[in-house]
Amino acid sequence: MKLEINTAGESHGKGITAFIEGFPSGVELDKDLIDRELRRRQGGFGRGGRMEIEQDRAEVLSGFYQGKSTGTPIVLWIANEDWENWKEAISPEEETEERRSVTLPRPGHADLAGSLKHGYEDFRPVLERTSARETAGRVAAGGLSRTLLREFGIRIVSRVTRIGSAVDSTEKDKVPLENWNELADDSPVRATAGNAEEEMMAEIENAKEEGDSLGGIFEVVALGVPPGIGSYSSAEGKLDSKIAGGFMSIPAIKSVEIGLGKEAGSKPGSGVHDEIFHDEGRGFRRSTNNAGGIEGGVSNGEPLRVRATMKPIPTLARPLHSVDLISGEEGKAAKERSDVCAVPPASIVGEAELANLVAGAFLDKFGGDTLNEVRESFENHRARIQNWFEEV
Amino acid sequence: MKLEINTAGESHGKGITAFIEGFPSGVELDKDLIDRELRRRQGGFGRGGRMEIEQDRAEVLSGFYQGKSTGTPIVLWIANEDWENWKEAISPEEETEERRSVTLPRPGHADLAGSLKHGYEDFRPVLERTSARETAGRVAAGGLSRTLLREFGIRIVSRVTRIGSAVDSTEKDKVPLENWNELADDSPVRATAGNAEEEMMAEIENAKEEGDSLGGIFEVVALGVPPGIGSYSSAEGKLDSKIAGGFMSIPAIKSVEIGLGKEAGSKPGSGVHDEIFHDEGRGFRRSTNNAGGIEGGVSNGEPLRVRATMKPIPTLARPLHSVDLISGEEGKAAKERSDVCAVPPASIVGEAELANLVAGAFLDKFGGDTLNEVRESFENHRARIQNWFEEV
Amino acid sequence: MKLEINTAGESHGKGITAFIEGFPSGVELDKDLIDRELRRRQGGFGRGGRMEIEQDRAEVLSGFYQGKSTGTPIVLWIANEDWENWKEAISPEEETEERRSVTLPRPGHADLAGSLKHGYEDFRPVLERTSARETAGRVAAGGLSRTLLREFGIRIVSRVTRIGSAVDSTEKDKVPLENWNELADDSPVRATAGNAEEEMMAEIENAKEEGDSLGGIFEVVALGVPPGIGSYSSAEGKLDSKIAGGFMSIPAIKSVEIGLGKEAGSKPGSGVHDEIFHDEGRGFRRSTNNAGGIEGGVSNGEPLRVRATMKPIPTLARPLHSVDLISGEEGKAAKERSDVCAVPPASIVGEAELANLVAGAFLDKFGGDTLNEVRESFENHRARIQNWFEEV
Amino acid sequence: MKLEINTAGESHGKGITAFIEGFPSGVELDKDLIDRELRRRQGGFGRGGRMEIEQDRAEVLSGFYQGKSTGTPIVLWIANEDWENWKEAISPEEETEERRSVTLPRPGHADLAGSLKHGYEDFRPVLERTSARETAGRVAAGGLSRTLLREFGIRIVSRVTRIGSAVDSTEKDKVPLENWNELADDSPVRATAGNAEEEMMAEIENAKEEGDSLGGIFEVVALGVPPGIGSYSSAEGKLDSKIAGGFMSIPAIKSVEIGLGKEAGSKPGSGVHDEIFHDEGRGFRRSTNNAGGIEGGVSNGEPLRVRATMKPIPTLARPLHSVDLISGEEGKAAKERSDVCAVPPASIVGEAELANLVAGAFLDKFGGDTLNEVRESFENHRARIQNWFEEV
Repeated sequence: MKLEINTAGESHGKGITAFIEGFPSGVELDKDLIDRELRRRQGGFGRGGRMEIEQDRAEVLSGFYQGKSTGTPIVLWIANEDWENWKEAISPEEETEERRSVTLPRPGHADLAGSLKHGYEDFRPVLERTSARETAGRVAAGGLSRTLLREFGIRIVSRVTRIGSAVDSTEKDKVPLENWNELADDSPVRATAGNAEEEMMAEIENAKEEGDSLGGIFEVVALGVPPGIGSYSSAEGKLDSKIAGGFMSIPAIKSVEIGLGKEAGSKPGSGVHDEIFHDEGRGFRRSTNNAGGIEGGVSNGEPLRVRATMKPIPTLARPLHSVDLISGEEGKAAKERSDVCAVPPASIVGEAELANLVAGAFLDKFGGDTLNEVRESFENHRARIQNWFEEV
Repeated sequence: MKLEINTAGESHGKGITAFIEGFPSGVELDKDLIDRELRRRQGGFGRGGRMEIEQDRAEVLSGFYQGKSTGTPIVLWIANEDWENWKEAISPEEETEERRSVTLPRPGHADLAGSLKHGYEDFRPVLERTSARETAGRVAAGGLSRTLLREFGIRIVSRVTRIGSAVDSTEKDKVPLENWNELADDSPVRATAGNAEEEMMAEIENAKEEGDSLGGIFEVVALGVPPGIGSYSSAEGKLDSKIAGGFMSIPAIKSVEIGLGKEAGSKPGSGVHDEIFHDEGRGFRRSTNNAGGIEGGVSNGEPLRVRATMKPIPTLARPLHSVDLISGEEGKAAKERSDVCAVPPASIVGEAELANLVAGAFLDKFGGDTLNEVRESFENHRARIQNWFEEV
Repeated sequence: MKLEINTAGESHGKGITAFIEGFPSGVELDKDLIDRELRRRQGGFGRGGRMEIEQDRAEVLSGFYQGKSTGTPIVLWIANEDWENWKEAISPEEETEERRSVTLPRPGHADLAGSLKHGYEDFRPVLERTSARETAGRVAAGGLSRTLLREFGIRIVSRVTRIGSAVDSTEKDKVPLENWNELADDSPVRATAGNAEEEMMAEIENAKEEGDSLGGIFEVVALGVPPGIGSYSSAEGKLDSKIAGGFMSIPAIKSVEIGLGKEAGSKPGSGVHDEIFHDEGRGFRRSTNNAGGIEGGVSNGEPLRVRATMKPIPTLARPLHSVDLISGEEGKAAKERSDVCAVPPASIVGEAELANLVAGAFLDKFGGDTLNEVRESFENHRARIQNWFEEV
Repeated sequence: MKLEINTAGESHGKGITAFIEGFPSGVELDKDLIDRELRRRQGGFGRGGRMEIEQDRAEVLSGFYQGKSTGTPIVLWIANEDWENWKEAISPEEETEERRSVTLPRPGHADLAGSLKHGYEDFRPVLERTSARETAGRVAAGGLSRTLLREFGIRIVSRVTRIGSAVDSTEKDKVPLENWNELADDSPVRATAGNAEEEMMAEIENAKEEGDSLGGIFEVVALGVPPGIGSYSSAEGKLDSKIAGGFMSIPAIKSVEIGLGKEAGSKPGSGVHDEIFHDEGRGFRRSTNNAGGIEGGVSNGEPLRVRATMKPIPTLARPLHSVDLISGEEGKAAKERSDVCAVPPASIVGEAELANLVAGAFLDKFGGDTLNEVRESFENHRARIQNWFEEV
């Protein structure tokens, strides 16, 4: 069974649905974990007023019995508390007089491109679906994926390393990966270095005053991923390909890097490739991790390291130049209630995305119908790798 | 019908197969175009001896009749001329004494990760499939996609902007996109600026002397893409997600950027988002193209701009530290005949990848069974967009 | 975009979810139509007590705006009114003392096979998912598909031709296809011939008295399907293959026939194949429809005719021999509240299935992002076919 | 990894390609077995002249190394020996004067429906792809699937039970399933009862004399399938759904039945459902197998039994009424060299289809990257089921 995760739902609609197939039976539900992830997504300095309205909680609509997954399709539902205020404006079922049309597309958003695609003059349907609220569904699903992954000692962490021109210039890997979330979860901007935090917050304050918005860079790491997940056999099975596709699908992401990423283009091979060693009892290991844990589309046992760049939020308090889709007149782009900077929550979405992708690739290799079967396959694989030379 | 392209084949095996489904009927075969693309992939300064052996040509095994596509599955076959020398060493059908085992995995290649996945001590099967030769299949399919795209005025171009520490520092967009291939095809390193070319070649010469290898950066652009292809509705339908996934599946790619890419993280929203204008008769347009032609997962009518970073080739003349998978003894990694730098051909593979992805998304929107039907849908869409305000 | 329909939910759980992707924008919501289909599924002579508890209604959770589809994922939700009585017994979120385990698998149901698959001793999770209640989700989606299909003059009808040994022996096609639903909707057993109706009801009464259950045969027809949907190019694109797969996935179906079906094996070719004629202004037509509207996987313009056999319901009032999954002791299979005969509602499910499959194949050929685009493609196709010889 | 099998190729083209992904590494190649299956497909009383021209043999183009599968995409190639005679007539690469157009569509074939789909006046491309020759690709892939299945004791057998009005009236299951192929392979019509054989051959002779064609019924059985493959969780994962879809995609099939099939509609539940027993050391078993080995979409450990009806071949020596697609004039349908009755070879194709489907569902449950991993999962599952009550 292939793990498949899809979401539905509008930003101001009734709620967000996460529809999940291929999750094995026998995994214990940890709703606290899922709700904690939803809460983490809602935090962060620089968020707008929406976050005070919504206190996301996931409701399990199907796929569990007596506290354990059943292997049947799972539906998680996150109600939108804001819906009461919008139910006339964006009524799904009928035309209303309270319809709240939007006709001045925002540069940088899907507003115009989506309207040209569907022939919309009122691009409300585009706006509602392309809002970052959709990511609540991915984060809920990510919580589920984490409950599976932790059974095998796999953890996902993240941090923010840039917001606008404020950069975390701490020496690389001075902060151990294991400690990232401990530090970042305490920081309003998910920085792991105190000095960077202050600069980042100042940048945000500044942008806010100027009616502008900011993007930045975040890193997500999966710890404890065993070697051998993903595939080198075909383009679409490659783990790095899936990661790049998954991260680029997070709203506003404009670059995805794995391991050394862009820096890998400027160094010689001798300075990039991670030399291979073997330790009795521990197995194969590397002295460096420039590959970011993936070689040829397959995990190599080192931490998976992903870096993503988020562009600034398209909705500006001082809006940019646009054209009205009905009248054709020039004007300023629509303003919706919005954040100034969404990089910290995006890093939480990145964690969820990586959790979902790693869970999917993990099940591709070890997957059976039940957690028990997955565990057997995993243990057999681990034993083979750890005793590689003893078998000969 | 969804356009699906898969490849099969080993580097030194009988040949490479490209298997293509969902291609409409009625498209004229242009074998010269396909073979020209295959030849472009084989060029480039810094290639090894293999390129002199293989003169790739595609043979059409099925899916065409009297010079036109039939809408049935297409098979393109690229024979490996080197097969004669290897048919005993890697015989598919039986065990041979001439078996040419490889047991010292190369850091940076899939050798070790793939062996741990499959339990191989002789990682020959990994090496054979993860060689960049696989990309010949994608390039042949890309030639086919181009024959479709050109019917609609869509062209794909590329250039190399970095090799190791040698960077093309020409002012951005000084060289018009339209002229890239004209210039790059004349350059042994696919540079569009003369001074960069020399530096890049010097870098390669230098690396070769030191037994080292080099990576770099290339850019690929699709010109003439209409607005409205891709999707904002779901994560996996997003055009930027598909592009990121597709490019990251090209061997050795470690970062994918769209539009401004990584730079988008350091600028304010007012300096990033492309303001919207409308010109009578020409339609909507932007004054800048920082988005790289995609907003919210959907093409916006501006050129699609993709940038990818390739790491250095893992096979080094002065090999790195490794561990023998049979004996467990430390040693130097395997040497296979190899190039020093594969960035120029990778940019051709990038062109093919983008051609395939754009053709797929194009058919998702305009697709019918026949070229004629595709054309009708496309023309209707174009007319609607060009006469946007006249319809009101 | 490919039309994809998936369902989730348990028989006594919170409700049933239908998750629908790839539905074009611009289609008007007709909730009355959807609820009417749900009601039709709940009718029929021989149903058990459950039908009096549930009065199914679909709620639109996402994918519509101001009464029209938006092209984004649609979620339809059908709440289970019975949930209140079961929320402790099958609590998804935690273990409860009220847990209502079932351990004596019913022959003919998935109980045992599903338990062996997942290692269950309490097969409640199997029972909950494999109940026919799941089909409410398909029927709701089918209502949606009908709103699309009726825009193009496509209608779906059905009738029951056998229940147990009671057979509708009316001369073939004496009742015009167009009139089937008019007659069948008035019959408690969906018979289109009065004499058959009485016999069928007597059979059911009889089986009920004996604590037994009954299956039967129903026919589903799609009227107005244009020629050219489906595919002959690959096995999985064939319309008849999709229909067979879809119908066999309806619980308890054991045979699927298209057109003449099984009878086609006993006649010579000259008595089976539908001769080809052409009428000015009307286009190609056949004098017979033994093919059931599909040749080589592609619709040929004649009505699509499908016949399916449903086995008797596995839950018997006088239960069969079984073995307790915990104790290993022999015993009588579990009794759940159940119907005696579900053939009439199954024919409504069959209508929904055919509506969904035809809508999918229709969109594969004519599909664009919007209803408008679909209509343009359809009209162009129709004109070409109707003026086939005039074009020359 | 999901097992995916696709074919390409034209009836008189260069050859047939089978493209296979998701096959585990470590499975020994048995080319003799594959070629034997190809040969079995070519036999049968009532075949036309083509069978004497082609002596199908599969060539392995990729996916194997030193006699074992590598887990990478496998390509099997079956050259068409007839190609030499056709290479000008159906040249893929260019228009030729020798073009052999066909314009009088055969009732019962895809000729007309396919032409209307693609706007063809010369339906040669339809004819070439919809010929039963395509099934050579499935049969070659089926040979591969068998090499996997036999590792786990799974065998596939078939027989013909009807040709036209000649029926095998032997008492049901008088011939043990295990002996079917032994008997059927010796019979020119794949009958397992001598008297039926003669009648069937007489029917064929008779039809041939009258310029007519015949269909019939065949049965395919998979022996040794473990309980628990397939799925009850979602419509498309159900094993019976996949089987129905797969068999209906075989050219000319008009009905698919599982187990009792159509007969299940006329009996009461007490006479249909297979009562459940448990034998120490052997596990759960049934006294009957009316379900045909599948309950609720999941295998239950009994033999999988499938029955399919094939309509008569559409190409008649005394052709039926048709209309010329260019002139519009009425005429007799095209004659291509053809068989009179293809039921015996169709039963071999059915075996291949079932082998492929069972292998796919088997790998869905037990699948890992290597045969070794598949075996471990399978053995664990088997032990759990066999010791079901001991574990308590």
